[in-house]
Amino acid sequence: MELKNKIRNISNFPKEGIEFKDITTLIQDGEAFKESVDKIADLIRDYDIDLIVGPEARGFIFGTPVAYVLNKGFAPVRKKGKLPAEVMQYEYDLEYGTDVIEIHKDAIKKGMKVAIIDDLLATGGTIHACSKLIESLGGEVVVMAFLMELEFLKGREKLEGYNVKSLIKF
Amino acid sequence: MELKNKIRNISNFPKEGIEFKDITTLIQDGEAFKESVDKIADLIRDYDIDLIVGPEARGFIFGTPVAYVLNKGFAPVRKKGKLPAEVMQYEYDLEYGTDVIEIHKDAIKKGMKVAIIDDLLATGGTIHACSKLIESLGGEVVVMAFLMELEFLKGREKLEGYNVKSLIKF
Repeated sequence: MELKNKIRNISNFPKEGIEFKDITTLIQDGEAFKESVDKIADLIRDYDIDLIVGPEARGFIFGTPVAYVLNKGFAPVRKKGKLPAEVMQYEYDLEYGTDVIEIHKDAIKKGMKVAIIDDLLATGGTIHACSKLIESLGGEVVVMAFLMELEFLKGREKLEGYNVKSLIKF
Repeated sequence: MELKNKIRNISNFPKEGIEFKDITTLIQDGEAFKESVDKIADLIRDYDIDLIVGPEARGFIFGTPVAYVLNKGFAPVRKKGKLPAEVMQYEYDLEYGTDVIEIHKDAIKKGMKVAIIDDLLATGGTIHACSKLIESLGGEVVVMAFLMELEFLKGREKLEGYNVKSLIKF
């Protein structure tokens, strides 16, 4: 199946000038969704992984089924104030202003090998922040995998030094 | 495995007086997560289902792997302004004020049989709203399944007439 054709382009969302890649048309197709999950799992299967981490909210859509397939646990990275127990925070720059993401401190043990899963690699800002969060708790980010990559935004440069995998390139 | 023991209680989150059931301790355990997903899938396996729907964000954590296991597509219900294409909205009452949830209009076709998955059945307000949203587009909610149910909040009364399933009761 040509998974790329299942992704819908929406012009000017969330703001003027942005060509948004809409994954909902892919995931509402059971066969395309299953194939995507299996292929993302294949991208990281050969790494020694203790835990899958994914950022809120679309990172959960692929991160949790990939964790299921690979028999791993999943830890969510969430926006400020959403996680109920003791958290580690990381603040990072956006185009305008800053954002804060959090992970539970007890989600990452020292020396744990972590794979990060998200739907999209764009500028790499959020995933870079996720990595720093995991590393600040003593975890090691062994691989990161994405359903899609917007190559012209050069997220791989931001993520230099990491193993970066993606299924569909735009 | 006693899955109930994997859920952590956090007192006074998100506000004073609430005993929050934290699922992160369950999902970060690969074996417990897999068993939870398989058992939720078993709760709805015998129904004739075209699509799984789950509300943002924790509904994605169980909804997408259950969709994967049952070979179904998944459609997200999201908060206002998050979905990029044409949406149907539903406004519902909260304890204080109102909330609006949305689904893509093209996610639900007339006559489609839908299962709703979420982590928690509490008062049932959000899930009732999800059902109305699906029905307003001509879909039929054939079953709804939850990892946990807080029985003292009587969500089943709010959801009278629906097939309601839950794995763990508090």
